[in-house]
Amino acid sequence: MLFGGIEAGGTKFVCAVGDEKKNAIKRTQIPTTIPEETLARVIRFFEGFELDAIGIGSFGPADVHPKSPTYGMLTTTPKTAWRNVPLMQRIHDRFRVPVGFQTDVNAAALGEAAFGAAQGLDSCLYITVGTGIGAGAVIHEKLLHGLSHPEMGHILVRRHPNDEYPGRCPYHQDCLEGLASGPAIEDRWGEKGVLLKEREEVWKLEGYYIAQALMQYILILSPQKVILGGGVMKQELIWVHIRQYLKELLNDYIDFPQLSSRMDDYIVPPQLGDDAGVKGALVLADQARQEAKGRGD
Amino acid sequence: MLFGGIEAGGTKFVCAVGDEKKNAIKRTQIPTTIPEETLARVIRFFEGFELDAIGIGSFGPADVHPKSPTYGMLTTTPKTAWRNVPLMQRIHDRFRVPVGFQTDVNAAALGEAAFGAAQGLDSCLYITVGTGIGAGAVIHEKLLHGLSHPEMGHILVRRHPNDEYPGRCPYHQDCLEGLASGPAIEDRWGEKGVLLKEREEVWKLEGYYIAQALMQYILILSPQKVILGGGVMKQELIWVHIRQYLKELLNDYIDFPQLSSRMDDYIVPPQLGDDAGVKGALVLADQARQEAKGRGD
Repeated sequence: MLFGGIEAGGTKFVCAVGDEKKNAIKRTQIPTTIPEETLARVIRFFEGFELDAIGIGSFGPADVHPKSPTYGMLTTTPKTAWRNVPLMQRIHDRFRVPVGFQTDVNAAALGEAAFGAAQGLDSCLYITVGTGIGAGAVIHEKLLHGLSHPEMGHILVRRHPNDEYPGRCPYHQDCLEGLASGPAIEDRWGEKGVLLKEREEVWKLEGYYIAQALMQYILILSPQKVILGGGVMKQELIWVHIRQYLKELLNDYIDFPQLSSRMDDYIVPPQLGDDAGVKGALVLADQARQEAKGRGD
Repeated sequence: MLFGGIEAGGTKFVCAVGDEKKNAIKRTQIPTTIPEETLARVIRFFEGFELDAIGIGSFGPADVHPKSPTYGMLTTTPKTAWRNVPLMQRIHDRFRVPVGFQTDVNAAALGEAAFGAAQGLDSCLYITVGTGIGAGAVIHEKLLHGLSHPEMGHILVRRHPNDEYPGRCPYHQDCLEGLASGPAIEDRWGEKGVLLKEREEVWKLEGYYIAQALMQYILILSPQKVILGGGVMKQELIWVHIRQYLKELLNDYIDFPQLSSRMDDYIVPPQLGDDAGVKGALVLADQARQEAKGRGD
C-alpha cells in the first residue's frame, strides 16, 4: 500500500510518499508560487507511484466540509492567486484515488496523535501560533468536527491591563489571534518576533495570552496532551511564562499532576517538528481510503 | 431488557425503570435527605425488577474516573452528609448488575442527545446554569472525557465594565461560575433570581456573561446543538440577550445560519425538560451493560 501526503502551506508544499506504516519513502519541498506552477510540480513528484490514496492538509481559509459545494477549495485566502483554487479536485482529477482534505492544523494534530507527542492517547490538542492562531483536536481518536471545524484562535481573552495594543483581528479586534499572533507581536513591538528574542517583556505578555487560551481549551476539551507549535513557539522564553501563568489561572482547581508538577510533560512542542503536517496528511490519506472502501467506491 | 436510571440531585433523586427503548415504565422522586434514608428508598423503588443495568447521573463533585480508587464516590460535595459516600458501589452491591456513573450534567447531555433536542446529531453541548455552572458534551456520539471530565463552568470571561461584583468562585474569583451562577445573581442583586424576574438589567448582564461562554464553547467545540438548562435559564428575559450578545461577539465570523438567522433553533432549552437527567441515566445503564458485555463480565 502507498499513500501520498501533501502539507499545502502558504510558503511551501511538503510532499511525501508513505508506505503502509506511513514511513516516508520519498519526500520533497516545493515553494508556493502560483497554483499552475506549484501544482504541476506536486503532481510530477507523485507520478510513477501507484498511490492508493492521498491526504492534503491545507492552508486556508479552505472549505473542509464534505457536503459543501466548494469542498476542497481554498476560499477567501489572502494569497489571492490561490483564491477559489479547487486544490482537492485538481489532485483527484489527476490521480483518481480517494483524497482526504483538511486544514493544515488538523493534519498536524492527526500526525502528532498517530506518531508524535500524543501517540497512544485517546485525545490531544494541537495549537499553532504563527501568522494566525489555529488549533485541531483529536477526540475519541477522530478529528473534532461539529457544526464547523473549530476556530479556536478567535476565542476571547482578557486584555492585560498594561497592554494598549488595539488588536488586529478584522472580525473581533482583540480576540486571541488579534492580540497574540505573529503579526500582532510585530505590530505591537515594531519588529518581527525573531528580532525580539531577548526581550523578556515580549514573551511574558505573549505567555499571558497563550496561557488564558490554554485555560479555556483545557477546561472545555480536557485533552490528554497539549501540543504547541508554529513559529512563535520557537521562542524559548515563552514556555516558562505560559506554564507559570496557567498554573496561577487554574489555581489547583483540577487535581492532576499534568496541571501542576508534571506540566512540562503535558504542554509540549510537536515531537514530529515540522513533519507533523505531512505525516498527518498520510494518515488522512489512509482514512480517505478506508471511508471510500466503507462506501464501496 | 430493563434498565434502572437514577438522577441523583442535591435536592431530589429522580428514579425510573426503563424498557429496552428507555421508555420509563415506572418513575418516582425521592427527596435528598441523609444517605441511609434516601438510598434505602431508592433501592426499595427498584426492588422487584430484574434490571440488566443501572445508570447514575450524580450531583458533585463526584469521581467519574473509572481508574481512580474513589470512582463512583461523592467527594468534596458541600452537602457534608454525602461526603465520601460510595454511591455507585452501594447500588452495585445491592443489585449486582453493571452500573454506569457520570456527572448529572453529562447524563443530561446524553439524554438530550439520545431523545431530546440533539436527537440524530453527532454532537451536542448541554449547559446547566443554576447553583453552579456545568456542561457536558457529546462528541462522535460519546461523552467527552479526556484528562478529566470537562469543567466548562470555570472558564474566564471578560468582566462587564460596570459590574463591580467581585465574583464568588473560591478558586478563580471572577470566572464564569463566579460571576454568573444563581448564587452570584443573588449575591450581586440582593435577592434570588426568581424574585428579579422583571429586572431587565439583571438578565442583560447575565446574558452578557453566558454569551461570552457560548462564544468560547462554539469556537472550541463547534457543537451541532447548544442546549441551555438549569434554574437560571427559566427566566424568559435572558434568552434574547444571550443571542444578541453572541451575534455581536461572533460578528459573522463563522458563516452558518445557526449562528445568525437560525440561532433560535441552535441555542435551545432542553427538550426533555427536567427529565433529561434520568433519561440520560437510562442511556448510561445501557452503555454500562454493553461495556460489561465487551469485557466478557
